[in-house]
Amino acid sequence: MAPVAPRSGDAIFANVERVNAELFTLTYGAIVRQLLTDLEEVEEVNKQLDQMGYNIGVRLVDEFLAKSNVSRCVDFKETAEVIAKVGFKMFLGVTASVSNWDAEGTTCSIILEDNPLVDFVELPDTCQGLYYCNILSGVIRGALEMVSMKTEVTWLRDMLRGDDAFELQVKLLKQVPEEYPYKDDE
Amino acid sequence: MAPVAPRSGDAIFANVERVNAELFTLTYGAIVRQLLTDLEEVEEVNKQLDQMGYNIGVRLVDEFLAKSNVSRCVDFKETAEVIAKVGFKMFLGVTASVSNWDAEGTTCSIILEDNPLVDFVELPDTCQGLYYCNILSGVIRGALEMVSMKTEVTWLRDMLRGDDAFELQVKLLKQVPEEYPYKDDE
Repeated sequence: MAPVAPRSGDAIFANVERVNAELFTLTYGAIVRQLLTDLEEVEEVNKQLDQMGYNIGVRLVDEFLAKSNVSRCVDFKETAEVIAKVGFKMFLGVTASVSNWDAEGTTCSIILEDNPLVDFVELPDTCQGLYYCNILSGVIRGALEMVSMKTEVTWLRDMLRGDDAFELQVKLLKQVPEEYPYKDDE
Repeated sequence: MAPVAPRSGDAIFANVERVNAELFTLTYGAIVRQLLTDLEEVEEVNKQLDQMGYNIGVRLVDEFLAKSNVSRCVDFKETAEVIAKVGFKMFLGVTASVSNWDAEGTTCSIILEDNPLVDFVELPDTCQGLYYCNILSGVIRGALEMVSMKTEVTWLRDMLRGDDAFELQVKLLKQVPEEYPYKDDE
């Protein structure tokens, strides 16, 4: 059978079930506020958002692979491009770009100029250490772990902290070769 | 100026910014799980979800009024229909129906057969008292309070508890006449 061509983020986004972005934004804001109340320490909130994102990423990757027809990426470079161009479009409806590759091809930045999570958000002075969008770094980390890439994801720029874009640095720590517990018959 | 005709929920939903429903579902699931961990008591989680929904409803009503061109509803009956037909469609992409009116026209049920919040959700035995979708009752209560209607919103049926639909009873407790702190010049 001829391989199915990968679908663009736009095409997938047009066809998946969606909800109103403002409802999502406000719901996400409600989570962050809740965590700030419950956990008190901003550092703990960052950790918790990352963990929640990780759990989401681990599950979201299935829908991503099923709907996008993306087959195995040849390397980390292609993977980063697919996350930025297809993944962000498919889930958040925005496109991200990839830049700042290091010489080894194991570290890059995913840059986001439009981010529906932060509409209407302003951080009060008491929350200066907060990475409000930390759920995103967790989602990327979780999703990549499911395709055998251990990564570290860090915020380099954050518009809520006065920067001109959102920049996530993704660093490949280890690529685990996949082991099949069964014999591959294909 | 001629009044602008109210827009259908479908028309509005087609034009607002949206995000992937599965991302929303998983994010909502992450909140509920987080609250269960932090608060331990299922009753407290129900309360907290309702409160979060209330805060969201209070803000969402502005977008609703701005995008839907819905003008003041003549009575509670019309209000309930607008919530079910326009509100649910506009925010969650699903349509609800209204039934079970009492003789006074102050209590009705909003019935939802399709509910994106519960995709992939199964409640473990330890969560039997949980109203998983309690954020929705809070949203309705909060939104209605902003248009001067005090309501009580209660779950009568819940598919996660084995019922055949989701049924929210909305009871109008008090309709507060709006007072303007300024002179209305129109």
